[in-house]
Amino acid sequence: MADAPIRRTSVRRAVRDYGGHTATTWGIAVETPIEIAIDGAPWTVMMATPADLEDLATGLVLTERVVDSPDAIITLTVANYLDGVAVDVRIAAGSPNASTQRRRSLEGRVGCGLCGVEALSGLPRPAAADQPRPRIDARAVHDALARLAQMQPLNRTTRSVHAAAWCHADGTIDVVREDVGRHNALDKVVGALARAGRLSEPGFVVMTSRCSFELVYKAAATGAGALATVSAPTSLALEWSTRLGLPLLCAGNDGAIVEFPADSSHAP
Amino acid sequence: MADAPIRRTSVRRAVRDYGGHTATTWGIAVETPIEIAIDGAPWTVMMATPADLEDLATGLVLTERVVDSPDAIITLTVANYLDGVAVDVRIAAGSPNASTQRRRSLEGRVGCGLCGVEALSGLPRPAAADQPRPRIDARAVHDALARLAQMQPLNRTTRSVHAAAWCHADGTIDVVREDVGRHNALDKVVGALARAGRLSEPGFVVMTSRCSFELVYKAAATGAGALATVSAPTSLALEWSTRLGLPLLCAGNDGAIVEFPADSSHAP
Repeated sequence: MADAPIRRTSVRRAVRDYGGHTATTWGIAVETPIEIAIDGAPWTVMMATPADLEDLATGLVLTERVVDSPDAIITLTVANYLDGVAVDVRIAAGSPNASTQRRRSLEGRVGCGLCGVEALSGLPRPAAADQPRPRIDARAVHDALARLAQMQPLNRTTRSVHAAAWCHADGTIDVVREDVGRHNALDKVVGALARAGRLSEPGFVVMTSRCSFELVYKAAATGAGALATVSAPTSLALEWSTRLGLPLLCAGNDGAIVEFPADSSHAP
Repeated sequence: MADAPIRRTSVRRAVRDYGGHTATTWGIAVETPIEIAIDGAPWTVMMATPADLEDLATGLVLTERVVDSPDAIITLTVANYLDGVAVDVRIAAGSPNASTQRRRSLEGRVGCGLCGVEALSGLPRPAAADQPRPRIDARAVHDALARLAQMQPLNRTTRSVHAAAWCHADGTIDVVREDVGRHNALDKVVGALARAGRLSEPGFVVMTSRCSFELVYKAAATGAGALATVSAPTSLALEWSTRLGLPLLCAGNDGAIVEFPADSSHAP
């Protein structure tokens, strides 16, 4: 994981009995517009933590299905400008999804709050979903969640960024990426795996964020056996979990690990 | 706060020593497309928790500055369909922002990840930012954060939704709204205040989510003296805090309340 820029700012920290405060400083995580172009043509702009941008761009074009495989990415060029960063992704001619998906993705970005309801039904199925996924047990998820808290250097200083981690099936944490945006953090992990040629390895994803349906979709682009988050799924996240065959796990109120099986008999 | 729909689903809960699991059920928070129309014309679609939708629509048209004042809203009509909910907002003829802002907001929605960098600079200044904001002390924020945890009935069952609360300056919680989306939760609180004619009352906003710049912008549409969140601000959130004169507070790693003064000398 690359070092992310941190700015210092003056803050007031309340003293224990709230009778006053001390003046001190705080590390602020930098949030920067990252413009991603495909073959030189603007594709999207993400507000993101400006670190591991090759991972971010690689992950994003894979999880948004601009390309089917990391092999379709020929070069990645990161250029720094005064007011932001641009990443240009060059794609092999004739890549199956490139032309159709580029159009879809631009529309898909008209989402967030929006998250285009019609567009959702048109999302392509991630390639990895057709492979058998490893079974991940609750103990591994418990261990990974506990370990991840110690592996977030940017958040330790700033308390303002999410982390995504790729874990081995035994709960060992293998790759961690931090970002102000939860989707960016996951895209960076997916990109890091892809760039190392490890996209279909067995393992699972752990995240410090809530379980949004976009995370379910993105995690399904890997060989993950589960997506573990700090919140339980909403109806939409559970629906996508079932559709993509990716079980979801979270810690319940009492700390016990709860599994939402990706089994159509459990669909809402 | 209105009751939100909850679906039951089957889950596996790990037993304490991870030697097995028990089969049980879990409450899933429903996430539904909410189409918001202005004077009958489609304006935006939000994925949201389908409760308190009059509050949501009122808050959204105010915080996104479709209208300057709740007085410009003539009627709100909520209609339930098979696959979602539609809210139609009728606006008084001649409302200052209606035509220009409607166009801007459609573009603004092309954001999330994107959050249109150019569009940001064009955001109008919230009206309330010109009023003096009350000073909120750290003890009130500490008390409100502690109390809010007990006032989230939907999240207690589902563990998957955010809460936003309007608090009196002494830390007493006055209005709570829950939603799968943090921005929706805040818009619901703003809408609830607006519909009660209390939009410029002194107080502050507490949220269970991270401090995004959109929340700073939305909270500034009220008479809030501060926005308190569970995370510290990123560079962009701090920049907007300074620009709008709205201090940010959060609990630091040691539990102490940290204040980021909205003072241009502290701008990043």
